[in-house]
Amino acid sequence: MVGWRYVVAKLEFRNNHSVSSLPTVAILGGTGKEGPGLAMRWASVGYPIIIGSRQLEKARVTATELNAALNIDTIRGMENGAAAREADICVLTVVQAAHQAALESLKVDLQGKILVDATARVDFRNPKPPAPPAAARIAQEILGAGVRVVAAFQNLPAHVLKKNLGQSLEAEVLVCADDLEAAEQVIQLAEAGGMRAYYAGGLDNAVVVEGLTSILISINQRYGVKTASICLRL
Amino acid sequence: MVGWRYVVAKLEFRNNHSVSSLPTVAILGGTGKEGPGLAMRWASVGYPIIIGSRQLEKARVTATELNAALNIDTIRGMENGAAAREADICVLTVVQAAHQAALESLKVDLQGKILVDATARVDFRNPKPPAPPAAARIAQEILGAGVRVVAAFQNLPAHVLKKNLGQSLEAEVLVCADDLEAAEQVIQLAEAGGMRAYYAGGLDNAVVVEGLTSILISINQRYGVKTASICLRL
Repeated sequence: MVGWRYVVAKLEFRNNHSVSSLPTVAILGGTGKEGPGLAMRWASVGYPIIIGSRQLEKARVTATELNAALNIDTIRGMENGAAAREADICVLTVVQAAHQAALESLKVDLQGKILVDATARVDFRNPKPPAPPAAARIAQEILGAGVRVVAAFQNLPAHVLKKNLGQSLEAEVLVCADDLEAAEQVIQLAEAGGMRAYYAGGLDNAVVVEGLTSILISINQRYGVKTASICLRL
Repeated sequence: MVGWRYVVAKLEFRNNHSVSSLPTVAILGGTGKEGPGLAMRWASVGYPIIIGSRQLEKARVTATELNAALNIDTIRGMENGAAAREADICVLTVVQAAHQAALESLKVDLQGKILVDATARVDFRNPKPPAPPAAARIAQEILGAGVRVVAAFQNLPAHVLKKNLGQSLEAEVLVCADDLEAAEQVIQLAEAGGMRAYYAGGLDNAVVVEGLTSILISINQRYGVKTASICLRL
């Protein structure tokens, strides 16, 4: 009986809050700078979030911290592979040096998922635009056709993501993907997190979005600001 | 006496209009799509403009047309090499296929000048981001240290430049250069032409600005618009 009532209560919760169709999002390498900010934005509007890390304990610590900050208990911490298997959409926020190794180790776990690659291969101390292929194209080649790779969130300053969670961010997200339906899901995810997002062409275009990080660092330095960002005029 | 009075009248004109210090600008390959729009913007605010072409006659025809459109007579037409030698700032607006050959043929004429490279190596029918080095970096290598190369104006839609000459353009110009003083002169030039311009880092960053053309084409196609443009939030 307890089990049955629990199921009913959970169904009611899902119906009442209209969150039944929200995808589960795993932030792989989610204990770094960028991941927690994205996790908080999505968790605070009802998305089931999993923080992934190579170390289970680190993932759990970050999940506990974020839950406490938001006064919720829906963010879970898992080892990256388990997080990927459990999620519908996985967002990869590892440092650039770990990019390829992380993808190779998660290739099996990611099959059937959308993988959002947020990697910008730009060194903050010596910023230069990366050469094609885009990090996300490399990801697609490693993961194969069973994973739909989308490039997004490469230019968001981590400290901005965590501020004013309920408000819109003054930042556009350029979403590049060869699969339009996957791109649309990521655009929805970005907008749910308070960002304006636009489809900006196929995966190959993502190398430009990576390179914008180099441009924005130069602009920040020249004009003595910290959060120069690109916007779009349609 | 006629000659003397002409000189006095010209000096008075220059003093009255405070244009005596304006640099002469040559638009090399200026008979194409992009060049005439830039020429009109700068000529209409008093810059001495030279339209350059490989064919003197073509340059003169374009100069005559632009003078007629603006009801002025200050725009001259010259062969590219003569135009470069006469100018302080040269803006290269040739099609991408002609980029290297044009630079090689103008190497001697361009010594001591600022060369503004507006080339974006993106095919409109099959847009893909170009690989480093940037077109402007290639230009710098061809021209040598005696020419100060600046990358700018790669993303401006030609049909927008010619409209509403007296008004500000809704378009940001990202100016990349290794020489800050040269960059500053080009920023002034852009702003005189009604554009907002920002220093966006060294010449190598210009490959990103070229690649933005590919992003903007994709956005235009996806959202059914013609003039998507990048803006900047500082």
